[in-house]
Amino acid sequence: MSNRFVIVNDSFVPEDKAALLVSDLAIQRGYGIFDFFRIIQSKPVFTDDHLDRFFNSASQMRLPVGKTKEELKALLLELAAKNNLPYSGIRITLTGGYSEDGYTIATPNLVIVQKPLIVNKENSPEGISLVTYAHQRQLPDVKTIDYLMAIWLRPYVLQNNADEVLYHKDGVVTECPRSNIFIVNKDQEVITPAANILKGITRKHILKIASENFIIKEKDVTIDDIIHAKEVFITSTTKQVLPVLKVDGHAIGTGKPGEISLRLREEIVQSINSF
Amino acid sequence: MSNRFVIVNDSFVPEDKAALLVSDLAIQRGYGIFDFFRIIQSKPVFTDDHLDRFFNSASQMRLPVGKTKEELKALLLELAAKNNLPYSGIRITLTGGYSEDGYTIATPNLVIVQKPLIVNKENSPEGISLVTYAHQRQLPDVKTIDYLMAIWLRPYVLQNNADEVLYHKDGVVTECPRSNIFIVNKDQEVITPAANILKGITRKHILKIASENFIIKEKDVTIDDIIHAKEVFITSTTKQVLPVLKVDGHAIGTGKPGEISLRLREEIVQSINSF
Repeated sequence: MSNRFVIVNDSFVPEDKAALLVSDLAIQRGYGIFDFFRIIQSKPVFTDDHLDRFFNSASQMRLPVGKTKEELKALLLELAAKNNLPYSGIRITLTGGYSEDGYTIATPNLVIVQKPLIVNKENSPEGISLVTYAHQRQLPDVKTIDYLMAIWLRPYVLQNNADEVLYHKDGVVTECPRSNIFIVNKDQEVITPAANILKGITRKHILKIASENFIIKEKDVTIDDIIHAKEVFITSTTKQVLPVLKVDGHAIGTGKPGEISLRLREEIVQSINSF
Repeated sequence: MSNRFVIVNDSFVPEDKAALLVSDLAIQRGYGIFDFFRIIQSKPVFTDDHLDRFFNSASQMRLPVGKTKEELKALLLELAAKNNLPYSGIRITLTGGYSEDGYTIATPNLVIVQKPLIVNKENSPEGISLVTYAHQRQLPDVKTIDYLMAIWLRPYVLQNNADEVLYHKDGVVTECPRSNIFIVNKDQEVITPAANILKGITRKHILKIASENFIIKEKDVTIDDIIHAKEVFITSTTKQVLPVLKVDGHAIGTGKPGEISLRLREEIVQSINSF
């Protein structure tokens, strides 16, 4: 067992004791939101972006956070100091609370968990394969805890020799369950879907970085656009920029990580390290 | 605080201590299933139907129950004997378990909660109003804990002077979040949607009871069919048969609870009481 602490509402609790009563609306009805950010060299990365999104998700789900952004920030730093994990991820979850009737929102429960970052294939730039699936996330612009389809689809992903699923609606792609998708087309334009997605924090920073050297566009991207793209990559807090080498079995571009993808990856890694 | 017990895996725990660690996949990712049945005069109602559906939901979500149906039944009876609530509801929940990486299914947690039945408008035959909303539940034939849209839509329901939402897809209605819908048309046919729904246990028994005196049909029902129906009612374990008097502000039939609805209600109540 670890010595790590978890915050449950206003208490610091050892990780193996951090629990919620079974009447919580997350357990009863899958009702909750969260956000996730990294600690690199003991410094939180893009915290303001993540907290802004967290408060927005909470508000859209009618879940009062019960703390100001500054109070939450102070709490996060206190947790990070206690746990002393210089390379880690922090997840803040806000649930529907202990609901008397199992249906009506109560006072939300706030849970803050910190874990070491694990480096695996998803974090390396070697590239992955995607398989498409027709699905639209509910309340796409809210970072809810709803990953029902994503987890349910794991066997489908593996049976299709892929690493992750790419959702689409009538052939227009949206996002992967935990990342945004970008393409680089033959005109060197960097394009990412704009509608029916969760707007990732890494997505936002990649758009900003890319705009310094490339034409960027936020607009509909079809499966056909993906298959004929020069480069495809996905972005997320843990994955940063991850080249996509295959979609539905079709090799993308040269079949190797694209130049622009790797350049953007390097640029965001540098910008975070000099943070 | 109550003296009631809750089962968490193999332990009987006082209700105010019944908890799951925050690493559970229900809290992390909204991943879990459940079922719910009633205890009337200390006797469980339609338990076999509910347990069959519970095992089917579990299997579709790749969640091993870890007990046979007979073992689970014995456990339920032991709980009911301890709690001594002759009129109550029992909810059996199975979650994705304590997931190390917060994404991969682990050993599921089984939670069994018993609560007194509350009698309110939803249980009386006076009738309710519905408002339609375009939404299709994910994995509709699995009783998952996903009620994100249902809870999110509560203000929409209230703003439209309704009691509950009725989901539809391109004008073809499916179900309410916690009940099935039936219409009685001008030819006295009793009709209920067949596709993209959770097949309720009460729905099944009402179809059986209705078939003794009426032509029953399981087929697509449109919003237009609803508005021009002679009678509309919803069915569920807690609601049994509940007349619907208004949909999207349109009065249904005479605007009063329909004869056939009330007759079917009486018949299922009788069949349960003589159980």
